[in-house]
Amino acid sequence: MKKHNFSAGPCILPESVLKKASEAVINFNNDDLSLIEISHRSQPFVDVIEKARALALEHLNLQDKGYTALFLQGGASSQFLMTAYNFLDKKAAYLNTGTWSSKAIEEAKLFGDLVEVASSKDKNFNYIPKEFTIPTDVDYFHCTSNNTIYGTQMKSFPESEVPMICDMSSDIFSRQLDFSKFDLIYAGAQKNMGPAGATLVVIKNDFLDKICRVVPSMLNYKMHADKDSMYNTPPVFSVYVSMLTLEWLKELGGINFIEELNQKKADLLYTEIDRNPLFRGLVNKEDRSNMNATFVLENEQLQERFNTMWLDARINGLEGHRSVGGYRASMYNALPLYSVQALVDVMKELERKA
Amino acid sequence: MKKHNFSAGPCILPESVLKKASEAVINFNNDDLSLIEISHRSQPFVDVIEKARALALEHLNLQDKGYTALFLQGGASSQFLMTAYNFLDKKAAYLNTGTWSSKAIEEAKLFGDLVEVASSKDKNFNYIPKEFTIPTDVDYFHCTSNNTIYGTQMKSFPESEVPMICDMSSDIFSRQLDFSKFDLIYAGAQKNMGPAGATLVVIKNDFLDKICRVVPSMLNYKMHADKDSMYNTPPVFSVYVSMLTLEWLKELGGINFIEELNQKKADLLYTEIDRNPLFRGLVNKEDRSNMNATFVLENEQLQERFNTMWLDARINGLEGHRSVGGYRASMYNALPLYSVQALVDVMKELERKA
Repeated sequence: MKKHNFSAGPCILPESVLKKASEAVINFNNDDLSLIEISHRSQPFVDVIEKARALALEHLNLQDKGYTALFLQGGASSQFLMTAYNFLDKKAAYLNTGTWSSKAIEEAKLFGDLVEVASSKDKNFNYIPKEFTIPTDVDYFHCTSNNTIYGTQMKSFPESEVPMICDMSSDIFSRQLDFSKFDLIYAGAQKNMGPAGATLVVIKNDFLDKICRVVPSMLNYKMHADKDSMYNTPPVFSVYVSMLTLEWLKELGGINFIEELNQKKADLLYTEIDRNPLFRGLVNKEDRSNMNATFVLENEQLQERFNTMWLDARINGLEGHRSVGGYRASMYNALPLYSVQALVDVMKELERKA
Repeated sequence: MKKHNFSAGPCILPESVLKKASEAVINFNNDDLSLIEISHRSQPFVDVIEKARALALEHLNLQDKGYTALFLQGGASSQFLMTAYNFLDKKAAYLNTGTWSSKAIEEAKLFGDLVEVASSKDKNFNYIPKEFTIPTDVDYFHCTSNNTIYGTQMKSFPESEVPMICDMSSDIFSRQLDFSKFDLIYAGAQKNMGPAGATLVVIKNDFLDKICRVVPSMLNYKMHADKDSMYNTPPVFSVYVSMLTLEWLKELGGINFIEELNQKKADLLYTEIDRNPLFRGLVNKEDRSNMNATFVLENEQLQERFNTMWLDARINGLEGHRSVGGYRASMYNALPLYSVQALVDVMKELERKA
């Protein structure tokens, strides 16, 4: 029996997806060859990446709206520099909501001037700043939709006169948004999409015309778009598993379905965190992430007992990030409601025994 | 039964490796979790990447010799720009032996002046230039050890007073060389090492001190070395399968063993190409690659019959690259000798029937 996997990422993927992925490593497409030993230019794999790209746009309701989906490599960390390399001509605006935003800011500084429109660093990033103005003389505005480490999530996005770029690594495909507000969305695969090693980039075709300097081919969005995301050998396995997960999501009912389930999971856990006197949430209530819930024990002396109890309940990956401490329950799309119930049961049991 | 897989890359991997990889996608390390849904910072995965890095150095006989092995993303195409971004201060020298060298040259031009010490473009890259001088006033000399598309292979390497960088994507771990001659070796995983999505970089530690400009973190070799190849989430699955393949190679007897087998396979095929009046090799004999053999039919009218025959013999991936035409038999480490024999049998059969 599988564990209840609350890992922050790489994280839980649907069991049916894992099964198909495992089979494809032995025999893909009934061709008596492994998925990972065929040419990436062979039709069976071209079909895979084309389907994955189409499904990504379909889920985001961006098909036929002038967007292109790419599967690149290097994770969000590569996007920190690529966005700036391609689009930061003179000045860009960034919202700083945590570790990942801060890293994006550091990398972008190499390419131009930066305006930090707001930051929640003053309170160890436990809230999302809302009162800020995006200058109109910047090349773009960059934000991070969900903060995996601190457990905050932007519930709304500003109206922006300048192009808006968003790192959605940890909550893409988890909730409905007007994705057409964004000129570029990027997301490392390893949360709601697939295994580490692939990065989804969804870019407005018009935005490709705004690339502001000569960019090396592998870092150039236009090059990848012109080559249908096959400029070089793509990360075949990660793209395939991403396609399977996007198919799985479609069969379930898409983002509308999963958003409702994600809300139920988050409500179940946050209700217990607020009710149970032994626990305390770490984040401003209105900014709580539906993907990553961070909390601590009020009494640290219960730590050892609690840790033993959730490990005994076959719960995995509940340790908080080292920069925050305490606990973090990541509840990505593939995590079943009963896994959250299992965690809540352990929290209640601790209360009874304490 | 598996096909005889002559694919040029992604290419054949050992069956035992595919089996273990397939199992790990369901249950890794007997932890009741998939390899691709656990934290990359968890001890079981840290053990994997550390083992893969150590095995890479061990196979190249570079352990304890001041080298560091890294598993990065983005394939050789990313290395084309990273090598220049990090080390091309004023001028660098390149040997142009084909498509990949040419691409490396194009990317490097963005960062400094280039000297092409020699090129075999005059004969569609069907030989390796040998008479050339490496200037002593350049930052480094760059070459490509094996040309996958044209089927040439450098059998020896120049003595170089300047640092030597080599793209060994398509023949690393296939033959014994004095690897300590090189300051930086890179190789996309998808030939002799593992699935697409990981890139091996082996770099001399002293060379890291020569990084010549401010480089974004993800493109900076020193950053990756300082973080033990875990600056960001690595391509977990590709690294794991690479580790399995490097283990497999060690159990077989390492590069010494496989080089002998590779020589037998190459001899078997090239002997038939030279003997059989229906076929002609495309490459200067002394520069023939032991990894990729390119050849054509003397009489193009036999093409359809030959194609039907090798497909019937369950041979996969024999089509030549579009820029060369004809046929290409890629004989990477994991290809058994009997697969080459199967191809030779078809070539002999065609002769009898023609």
